[in-house]
Amino acid sequence: MEEITKKIQELIEEKKINELHTMLEGINSADFPSLFEELNEEQIIIIYRLLPKEKAAEVFAELDSDVQRKLINVFTDKELKTVIDELFMDDTVDLIEEMPASVVKRILKNIGARDRKVINELLNYPEDSAGSIMTTEFIEFKKGITVQDGFDIIKKTGLKKETVYYAYVVDSSRKLIGSVDIKEMLISERDIQISEIMEENPIRVLTSEDQEEVAKMFDKYNFMALPVVDTENRLVGIVTIDDAIDVMQDENTEDFEKMAAMIPNEETYFKTGVFTHARNRILWLLVLMISSTFTGAIIQKYENAFAAVPILVAFIPMIMGTGGNCGSQSSTLVIRGLALDEIKISDIFKVIWKEFRVAIVVGTILAFVTAIRIYFQYGSEYQGEIVHLSIVVGLTLILTAILAKLVGGILPMIAKTLKLDPAIMAAPLISTIVDMCSILIFFKCAVMIMGL
Amino acid sequence: MEEITKKIQELIEEKKINELHTMLEGINSADFPSLFEELNEEQIIIIYRLLPKEKAAEVFAELDSDVQRKLINVFTDKELKTVIDELFMDDTVDLIEEMPASVVKRILKNIGARDRKVINELLNYPEDSAGSIMTTEFIEFKKGITVQDGFDIIKKTGLKKETVYYAYVVDSSRKLIGSVDIKEMLISERDIQISEIMEENPIRVLTSEDQEEVAKMFDKYNFMALPVVDTENRLVGIVTIDDAIDVMQDENTEDFEKMAAMIPNEETYFKTGVFTHARNRILWLLVLMISSTFTGAIIQKYENAFAAVPILVAFIPMIMGTGGNCGSQSSTLVIRGLALDEIKISDIFKVIWKEFRVAIVVGTILAFVTAIRIYFQYGSEYQGEIVHLSIVVGLTLILTAILAKLVGGILPMIAKTLKLDPAIMAAPLISTIVDMCSILIFFKCAVMIMGL
Repeated sequence: MEEITKKIQELIEEKKINELHTMLEGINSADFPSLFEELNEEQIIIIYRLLPKEKAAEVFAELDSDVQRKLINVFTDKELKTVIDELFMDDTVDLIEEMPASVVKRILKNIGARDRKVINELLNYPEDSAGSIMTTEFIEFKKGITVQDGFDIIKKTGLKKETVYYAYVVDSSRKLIGSVDIKEMLISERDIQISEIMEENPIRVLTSEDQEEVAKMFDKYNFMALPVVDTENRLVGIVTIDDAIDVMQDENTEDFEKMAAMIPNEETYFKTGVFTHARNRILWLLVLMISSTFTGAIIQKYENAFAAVPILVAFIPMIMGTGGNCGSQSSTLVIRGLALDEIKISDIFKVIWKEFRVAIVVGTILAFVTAIRIYFQYGSEYQGEIVHLSIVVGLTLILTAILAKLVGGILPMIAKTLKLDPAIMAAPLISTIVDMCSILIFFKCAVMIMGL
Repeated sequence: MEEITKKIQELIEEKKINELHTMLEGINSADFPSLFEELNEEQIIIIYRLLPKEKAAEVFAELDSDVQRKLINVFTDKELKTVIDELFMDDTVDLIEEMPASVVKRILKNIGARDRKVINELLNYPEDSAGSIMTTEFIEFKKGITVQDGFDIIKKTGLKKETVYYAYVVDSSRKLIGSVDIKEMLISERDIQISEIMEENPIRVLTSEDQEEVAKMFDKYNFMALPVVDTENRLVGIVTIDDAIDVMQDENTEDFEKMAAMIPNEETYFKTGVFTHARNRILWLLVLMISSTFTGAIIQKYENAFAAVPILVAFIPMIMGTGGNCGSQSSTLVIRGLALDEIKISDIFKVIWKEFRVAIVVGTILAFVTAIRIYFQYGSEYQGEIVHLSIVVGLTLILTAILAKLVGGILPMIAKTLKLDPAIMAAPLISTIVDMCSILIFFKCAVMIMGL
């Protein structure tokens, strides 16, 4: 890519327009954003104006919103109209949502009245709904046409449709009654009725359906596109697989961020300013910091115990760390399982039973290894107390492992039951809760077993 | 779904085969695995045998390997052959990889010699390579045919191809020279040469390419399929988008698991036994537990300090927790940014500079809030020392935030440079490292400022 950038800069410098033309032809639309990052504004505009109409729109849809804004600012009204006409509806809506008011005004001025109505409808669907990610450019067949009629329709209108791989069949009141895979059409005789090869009652979603559910359906059913209907079952749009993949990746990123105690952010790392980063992170840090003072208070309560046996304090990091790690392992598996529908809420007792047994195995190994370490490390120093100390720490580890794995397994499921996102019940929160309990267990065991 | 299951069980009970037939027609292949989970083996076999040949193969490919094995065990050789013939090559290979040797032997016996050769080749590609996930059933055009010729080929062979949305053009030595989107064919005149509408030199991958990179290309370029070539540029297969999505989700799951200190596991939560769960989790728990003893050793070194001011011990959980959370926020953002190619290795100084500034903002707020809390909570008890104590804790929090955010930001990038998976440099490991440093900072500050 770097070589290409250099070559392009040279060609612009030397005004070798023809060579530049040929070179640009070989570059995929999706590669232009990273190319543009290396060029200055003037160079970007020169290159953009060399692209053929259709590719220009494709490239435009791929660009970051700040580059889009810069381009629109230098566009003539005619240029702007050409781009908007070529863009698919869902990309136009995305553009309008990202641009400042003055730019939006210019865009809307250059859109025909009918498209403007569609766009306004699309803009009105709630964020993260199927309606907000669908496009209105799909291939529609009336009931009663033949395969050949279908091909004729595709030939006439296909260029302006986002996908031609699926067509949808509607009745006279625009209700969705079937879907046709282009594969079926291609292997059928041309005089067969579409209704004979269509899939009746295809799977569909309502405009109000959550986009995450829509993305899951693509994953499960291997669709290329999914029809979207209104409450009266009238076909209003389709979601295509490229948008479903974007939703999938965004939802994964959101889970990663929530699980690391952050407020999710739609922008990329570098596009987010320092203060926005700080704002997204500080809330949970404060909540967790204040919660952890309870663990501090528990420790304070046992001041006499560690005044008598100061070595006890040295085990605090190990117990806290192990408890946190045990808990975050379980919560991560359960959160991910819930997200992928591999675990259902009704499985809660199966999860508890599984985590309990895993905790017993894991906790016992940890306790055993630690007991040996304590014996060799402190054996000479704490002769009389060494067995008691090993028992206290070992027992604490086993109980902590059980507690952590149960809390880690159960809390995400409770969150889901309460219609909260299970991802908030991840490592940071689980650790803070488990810390408190494990330290309490530790000192209680110490007081009892070592007689402090 | 539950209602459907009940209805089906009733129909089997009452032997209403015709009704059952109609009902099964309306169920999507991807819904059969969850349906089968609710049925017993006998019922599964009855239903499976009622499915038409093509759908039966689709359903078979969706099933879990243990259900597949059960079915194969009751299949006659003829039934087995029918299924295998209908399965796409990549699904056959997946099946062979999952079955025990005796079943594999039976499968191979029922495959024609030519297919067996292809399967053996596919089985030989390294795990997680493009070759291991590709299929060999794609539409291939020779150079020099017309669009109409292309349609004839698709009509004749399309049913047995995994996708008809793209066709690939090869020269006489089977080298890949172009790709054709079916959309282009559908909107073109039938007597046009394919070479006029094909995309020359389409993006392709080698059989040895990492599947994660392949999945990223689908995300970036919005492909429906991607051609796979050998080192001599001969077309050997295609990867289809449904497989790319599976890879994407698997890689995300793997990252979640690694980031929670687990060895990644390809099976689902419930399919994994207790001992496998324990084995996947124990290694990192042991490593981190033993590492945390260093933090313990540091605390032990400052025994005199907390003997003099016991309240210091009560701040340990807060400092450790906050450091861990600060670090895991940064590492999560950087790991995710690297995975999505939003952050490159060359951005390391930009990351450091950004994290440093975020840490200053966040650390200052945390320090300020804590200082106020200390004043109100301990003001009366530790009158003379209260200002010193606030300064020690506040300063520790700021330094810990800076340290944690830098460590969290830098370590994943170092891992990537060393060709390790950045995901291992996540919360658990970062926390353990940051714990050690933050506790050291805390006691050093305490000793200096409070003169212990």
